[in-house]
Amino acid sequence: MAEQFFIPTKVIAGKGCIREHASLLAALGAKAMVVTGCHSALVNGSQADITAALQEKRIPYFVYNRIASNPSIAAVREAAAVARDEGADFVIGCGGGSPLDAAKAIALLAANDLDDAELFAGIFENPALPMVAVPTTAGTGSEVTQYAILTNDRLQTKTSIASEAIFPRLAFLDATYTLSLPLRVTVNTALDALSHALEGCLAKRAIALSNLLAAESLRISGACLPLLRGEEISWTVREQLLYASMLAGMVIAHTGTTALHAMGYSLTYFRDIDHGRANGLLMSEYLRFVAASCRERVEEALRRTGFADLDSFQAMLKELLGEREWISEAEIDRFSAIAIRAKNIGNTLRNPVQQDLAEIIRRSFI
Amino acid sequence: MAEQFFIPTKVIAGKGCIREHASLLAALGAKAMVVTGCHSALVNGSQADITAALQEKRIPYFVYNRIASNPSIAAVREAAAVARDEGADFVIGCGGGSPLDAAKAIALLAANDLDDAELFAGIFENPALPMVAVPTTAGTGSEVTQYAILTNDRLQTKTSIASEAIFPRLAFLDATYTLSLPLRVTVNTALDALSHALEGCLAKRAIALSNLLAAESLRISGACLPLLRGEEISWTVREQLLYASMLAGMVIAHTGTTALHAMGYSLTYFRDIDHGRANGLLMSEYLRFVAASCRERVEEALRRTGFADLDSFQAMLKELLGEREWISEAEIDRFSAIAIRAKNIGNTLRNPVQQDLAEIIRRSFI
Repeated sequence: MAEQFFIPTKVIAGKGCIREHASLLAALGAKAMVVTGCHSALVNGSQADITAALQEKRIPYFVYNRIASNPSIAAVREAAAVARDEGADFVIGCGGGSPLDAAKAIALLAANDLDDAELFAGIFENPALPMVAVPTTAGTGSEVTQYAILTNDRLQTKTSIASEAIFPRLAFLDATYTLSLPLRVTVNTALDALSHALEGCLAKRAIALSNLLAAESLRISGACLPLLRGEEISWTVREQLLYASMLAGMVIAHTGTTALHAMGYSLTYFRDIDHGRANGLLMSEYLRFVAASCRERVEEALRRTGFADLDSFQAMLKELLGEREWISEAEIDRFSAIAIRAKNIGNTLRNPVQQDLAEIIRRSFI
Repeated sequence: MAEQFFIPTKVIAGKGCIREHASLLAALGAKAMVVTGCHSALVNGSQADITAALQEKRIPYFVYNRIASNPSIAAVREAAAVARDEGADFVIGCGGGSPLDAAKAIALLAANDLDDAELFAGIFENPALPMVAVPTTAGTGSEVTQYAILTNDRLQTKTSIASEAIFPRLAFLDATYTLSLPLRVTVNTALDALSHALEGCLAKRAIALSNLLAAESLRISGACLPLLRGEEISWTVREQLLYASMLAGMVIAHTGTTALHAMGYSLTYFRDIDHGRANGLLMSEYLRFVAASCRERVEEALRRTGFADLDSFQAMLKELLGEREWISEAEIDRFSAIAIRAKNIGNTLRNPVQQDLAEIIRRSFI
């Protein structure tokens, strides 16, 4: 079967890159909607840079700052109605994964009347509005993917829209905006990126070029993660984390994710554990599970991180994660029952049954 | 200054990929122009696969098979007039670098009335027709670049159109079409790809992601080149060479080329030496020149090829290239005088003066 490589997003990276490349925004339309959360984009300077670039190019805009963490389908529908009412021509998503993914869904829903089934089926009549991604955390990789992950209360998990229609046109990577992140958020988002690169290596859909990008992402993450210990994090490390996260986004754009993400979604949905942390908590036992039948692939992935073996890798993660949450046997049953139905289960190198997932979760919380 | 990464082309790779993905062609328009040379696309099966895919999707098409090696500006103007007369909606370039680059220029000129100055300035009113690239050699990388190299008789060299408008929409990489290539063409085109990856590593415009792709391309080329010795070349090696060439194309899409290409163009223009061979002939002395002030960068690039040092690398090239052409002192003067005026000279890690280029050429033909 043929392999496919496709990342149509133009990625611009470097300090001050939005202001430097403001003219690229002017090509996207006459009116911009800036989609963000309520607070951090103001603190980290990203919103000011975006609005300054829009003002410089005399592009009318409005800011929609009501995107909460793990946005629901209802939340993006509400925002898309505003985009239509205001006549937005393009959407600039600014923030962590939540505003970026919301911006993609808004860009799609502003141009198409879709019920939930149509939205997740990925076939649309009209092209989405052009979308620009300005990540302010280094974890999601959403700036270079065709995915928008929304919280689906009907299915009690996260569900993804996967469509080439929502690849961002532009991604601006300026590590400046990550300088003010608290250590906890830095660690959690770095674990999200690590999870993307690791799962990409261990996905059935891995291809040669995704493996190359994943290996580089793992090399950088493996070198940077042990440095996230509370002292000030240098500019260079911030920039490397953002680059590794982008590479890992390019990886999952091709490979998708696997059982690790499927399990993590339950921890986030039911226990409100941060997405990156959720994956980090489950990561070592997931790797042990896969290694039981695909030892070489897991060892190769670990080797890329610079860790000698799973034990030393696990020890590093333990230190980063600190005290673990407690979860009950009833929760383990429920989470594994939901996770086993996820699409990405079938993409896992070793096929799990529900009991396998339950055991991974159980062992992760000992 | 900000770095940029952008490869909007969708790359599909694998045996039979054109037929398997025929539906992607249907999305590009109602009538196709297939641009190719007069002979090889018939022999290697690519033209039959393309026309079968078009027929299967009931897309009217016509074949324009009058693209010679190193196509001139006049040749692509003539073809663009045919594209307009026939009402082509999209262009499929099929062959080595010449038909692919011609197809890009045709796609641009069919949609825009441009004089030579406007053509090479890279600013156009109308978007180019969508263009599809089907490489049948493993060397040019044109399937993933924004360049079209045309022979410019006024300037007595090759001149490139460089514009995002001419990135192919689709690239189909099927190594089947390279199986019938003579050894000489296989070697020359592999040297072209090697040259792209090496120059990409040693370009002033190199960025982290181009270096990653270049390193992988060099690793593959370094492993495959010594296998090109007259015995039958395996499917795996054919596929690897095509992949390495595509990666190297992604590299120069970001880094551009350097003095090596500038010098090589004179050997091709005045002496009709194949483009890849021309670069291969000059490569070792070019590397020696750059290494004199940037030793570590050259050693790093060589290390990626798997060769211990420049001497062993040079010995491998010597064996592949066989007997060298003879060139006169008058030619050396003329070639270096033309090359030093090329745009890509300024992209060379160590800045040459004309005398440096003359010395590289002289030593390459001892």
